Order: sequence, then structure tokens, then C-alpha cells
Amino acid sequence: MDLKRYIRTVPNWPKPGVMFRDITTLLTSPEGFAQATDELAAHYRSLDFDKFAAIESRGFVFGAVLARAFNKPLVLLRKPGKLPAATERMEYSLEYGTDAIEVHKDAVSAGDRVVVIDDLLATGGTALAAIQLMEKLGGKVVEVGFVIDLPDVGGAKKLKAAGYTIFRLVQFEGD
Amino acid sequence: MDLKRYIRTVPNWPKPGVMFRDITTLLTSPEGFAQATDELAAHYRSLDFDKFAAIESRGFVFGAVLARAFNKPLVLLRKPGKLPAATERMEYSLEYGTDAIEVHKDAVSAGDRVVVIDDLLATGGTALAAIQLMEKLGGKVVEVGFVIDLPDVGGAKKLKAAGYTIFRLVQFEGD
Repeated sequence: MDLKRYIRTVPNWPKPGVMFRDITTLLTSPEGFAQATDELAAHYRSLDFDKFAAIESRGFVFGAVLARAFNKPLVLLRKPGKLPAATERMEYSLEYGTDAIEVHKDAVSAGDRVVVIDDLLATGGTALAAIQLMEKLGGKVVEVGFVIDLPDVGGAKKLKAAGYTIFRLVQFEGD
Repeated sequence: MDLKRYIRTVPNWPKPGVMFRDITTLLTSPEGFAQATDELAAHYRSLDFDKFAAIESRGFVFGAVLARAFNKPLVLLRKPGKLPAATERMEYSLEYGTDAIEVHKDAVSAGDRVVVIDDLLATGGTALAAIQLMEKLGGKVVEVGFVIDLPDVGGAKKLKAAGYTIFRLVQFEGD
């Protein structure tokens, strides 16, 4: 089945005019979740990389299944203040204000080839911060993988313009 | 290898006197992550249940792998304000103040047999709220599964006293 049919659209959330793409309905469908993770795994089978880095918190769902399937390390990219050992951090701009993501310094080594995983690509702000965070530790992000891309919001264009490769299972355009 | 050896202990975090048990070092070890998820899966193979419900956010890591391994639905139990469709919520007490967890109302149906998954059992406050949240929707929690139990903090005792079954892979007692 078309993967998009497992994804629920919730209009006007979190604010008027936004069509929110909700993956919880994909996760409660064993067929949908299997298809999504199998399609991601099939893609990554041909890529040369060392570890997955998953963005909190829905990225953890897909990153965990992939890391286990490939027998590769899973690195957690977390919101500030969640990681107990020595961390590196990268700030990024939001519509109003800034946010940041953190990673344990010893989770990525110089030369590591990293695949960053998140569920959804919108503005690309978090994904770009994740890439820069990996690079701060000497890692190389070989690809950023998403279940959903919202190309109208501009994230894919921004990441490609910065020289990075992205992969996504489905796209939702317009409203 | 003993699973505990994959788990890093960070002293005095998040506050003085606390020995924080850090699973990120288990996740960056493919052997450790495989062992933990295989041991959980081996246990759940003999249990009769319908779906996994995973607690945000480290619970997502283990819940996702289990849901995929068993071809069962994965329900996300999230912090307030994250779920876009109609939700049910359960508040619980913290040391100071209260917190809450939410779930989509249509993610659990009356009669569903649910296994709740989280990474760590400490006071049991979040786990008990998760159980009550499932019950509010008519579900029955057949077990709550954790990677780590800290029995000295009292969560296991509290959940058992309330009549619930727990399962954990490892225990850390004292400091």
C-alpha cells in the first residue's frame, strides 16, 4: 500500500493553516511500520556508513529499528539537558528564538560516517544543526534520512544547497 | 556479556548523590543493544498481548524494536502537547509539582492487552500514570517492561503493590 495512506493528516495543528502529518497512525499499523522501516533498510543496504544518529524523539523510533537491523551503533541526538556525560551542542534558530541539540562527545569519533535519521523534514533547521553537530565531532554525515518530506517548507532545498544528501520515503506537497 | 557492563554510570547527575545509569553507551554498542532487545523479545514471546505502548523518549528506542520484531502496533505515550489528534491524559506527581502523559484516544481500544515499555524504572510515577492512562481507554496492561530497575528508589515495589506485573533486564542497587 502507498505509505502515505498510513499517515494521518490533522488540519490546523499546531496552529491554524498547518496540515500536520501524523506518523502515530503508521506506528499503530504493523503493516505500515514494517513497510516504512523495510523501505529505509533497503535503501541503506547500499550505503557505506558506520552509525545511525537519531533525532529526539520520533527519530528514535526509526533510528532504533535501523540500528538494530544493521547491527550499527545508535547515537541519540537529544534536546538540551538530557544527556549525563560530556556533551557537544549546536544551537539553531526557530521562528522565534533559538533551540539546541546535544550529543555525547564520545558517541561520534573523527572520521565516522554517520546517517542522521528523523521522522519528518520541514524547515530543515534541526536536521542542519544535527549535521553540524556531527561535523563538530569530526564525523561526516553521508545522508539524512526521513520518513516524510514537506518540500514546500523548504528544508530539502536548504540541505541540498548546503551540499548534503537527503533521502525520504514520502512527500506531502501543498495543503 | 553482563548487560550491566554496557550501561555507563555517571555520578552526581542530574544532582549530587545520584548515580545516573546511562543507556546511551548500550545503544552505541551493537552487541549490547542486540542483547538487550533480544532478551526483551525472548521474554515477550511467551506473553499474550496485543500491542506495545512506549514511554517518551528513551522508551521509544526499545518499544520500536519490539513492535517491529513482534509485528504488533506501537503506541506512543508522549509528554503533553505533542500529539495532534484527540488525546487522553493522565497527570502524576513529581517531587515538586506535577507532570502528565498523553496518548491518542484511538490508539488503544477497550479490551486491548498492552505491554508498556520504558528504559528505566525509578519511582514508578510515570509508569503508573502510563498504566492508568491505558486503563482510562479500556486497555489492560499485562506487564510493564524496563531495561533497568532501580529497586532502592521504590518503583518496583509500588507497581507490584498496585497489582501490576513488571519485568526488567537488570537491576542496580545502592550506589
